[in-house]
Amino acid sequence: MSVPRDHPRYHSLMQREKLARGYEQGITVIEGLIAHGRGEAFDYLIGEATAEPAKRAIRAAAATLLLASMPVISVNGNTAALCPAQLVHLARVANAKLEVNLFYRSRERARRIAAVLKQAGAEEVLGVEPEAEIPNLSSERRLVAKRGIYSADVVLLAIEDGDRTEALVEMGKRVIAIDLNPLSRTAQRASITIVDEVTRALPLLTQEVEKLRGLSKAQLEELASFDNRANLKAMLRHITQRLSELEP
Amino acid sequence: MSVPRDHPRYHSLMQREKLARGYEQGITVIEGLIAHGRGEAFDYLIGEATAEPAKRAIRAAAATLLLASMPVISVNGNTAALCPAQLVHLARVANAKLEVNLFYRSRERARRIAAVLKQAGAEEVLGVEPEAEIPNLSSERRLVAKRGIYSADVVLLAIEDGDRTEALVEMGKRVIAIDLNPLSRTAQRASITIVDEVTRALPLLTQEVEKLRGLSKAQLEELASFDNRANLKAMLRHITQRLSELEP
Repeated sequence: MSVPRDHPRYHSLMQREKLARGYEQGITVIEGLIAHGRGEAFDYLIGEATAEPAKRAIRAAAATLLLASMPVISVNGNTAALCPAQLVHLARVANAKLEVNLFYRSRERARRIAAVLKQAGAEEVLGVEPEAEIPNLSSERRLVAKRGIYSADVVLLAIEDGDRTEALVEMGKRVIAIDLNPLSRTAQRASITIVDEVTRALPLLTQEVEKLRGLSKAQLEELASFDNRANLKAMLRHITQRLSELEP
Repeated sequence: MSVPRDHPRYHSLMQREKLARGYEQGITVIEGLIAHGRGEAFDYLIGEATAEPAKRAIRAAAATLLLASMPVISVNGNTAALCPAQLVHLARVANAKLEVNLFYRSRERARRIAAVLKQAGAEEVLGVEPEAEIPNLSSERRLVAKRGIYSADVVLLAIEDGDRTEALVEMGKRVIAIDLNPLSRTAQRASITIVDEVTRALPLLTQEVEKLRGLSKAQLEELASFDNRANLKAMLRHITQRLSELEP
């Protein structure tokens, strides 16, 4: 299928095509395709644009990344299929490590995702041979790299399950989540939730890190302090407002 | 993967497994998996239960089916994977024909879906070798059976694209749509939209047909007269109400 560039749904159709290709390559799984559909529905409700509360979350996330002594970006099958170059770019700008972390893990799948990130310019990708475990987590997502997520003080993740988000927060880490569903457990458990589509949010976050880089520690700390619950409420109000305007 | 029956998400996980199996068997397509995810998100917002407005739409749909002289149930890859027996049962009770109709059509895929329906007890499945076309429709969905959708006065469909719904209405048919997104073009163009999850709605619709069977034509006509726009507005209010209760 080739999608004409001027198609009104070009971006959305291209994303589906990238995920379909990811599935054929053994990077994305069926569950990831369905999760993407859930995201599409929420993005539709949000208005397929970065909302004001999401912009505030992005600012807090950027400050948090700059304050981190060891930030790690967790990569799954969907984000690897959709935006490997954006992930690598953010990792470089934020001085963060990249680590593969999968719910449906196989060594082969982890290796393929690492290869995709390396093709996109990553020098090192952790998590292919994880040697540590997140405590109190039974899924395969518990398997992490010792000098990656295990030791990180800040973890950025997208399209995630609530259990791991919770377990990471319990380990004392600051978790930045990119999640389109403001009601998901990930959204509610994360320290900072960016309710936005991942390929829209990542470049904005990267820009923001570059923009805030010159600030003092005190200034960054002020920007990084963030009321996630209040922000999620603001996102929900945004959706409810849009729904009332959209009435058929 | 085997899902324990007492898992809180048992039904949802089983559906994903059925779709995954459908994909492996060449019945479901990638686009269908993503569409299912969109449906999951809307179902979550609806509350994963048949809402009052949906019950009213089901009643109107049942009366419409009983009044029809030639009702046809249109089957696609997702419904064939999720609920072939429910489709066959409704067809029998409503004296309706079953017809395969696909956006991503191949003869092989249409044949496989027909085989699934026959395994589930269907005597005849139309649409494998379609010999007619819906006017003003360019997608593969235009290809229909002459003594099926082409001649039907009532068409029931689920998880559909807006273009075909519109073209069928323009042909003068009554279209009953089962669609979880009250804002979709299908939902808005159909004559009667049941905003509910398809495997919840189908048995309720079948029951309702059985229940209303004894009524007079005049009584059925009264039940079949339906303000779809008002019903969709009621569904949206239901969602908005729930969202305001769900605030994090």
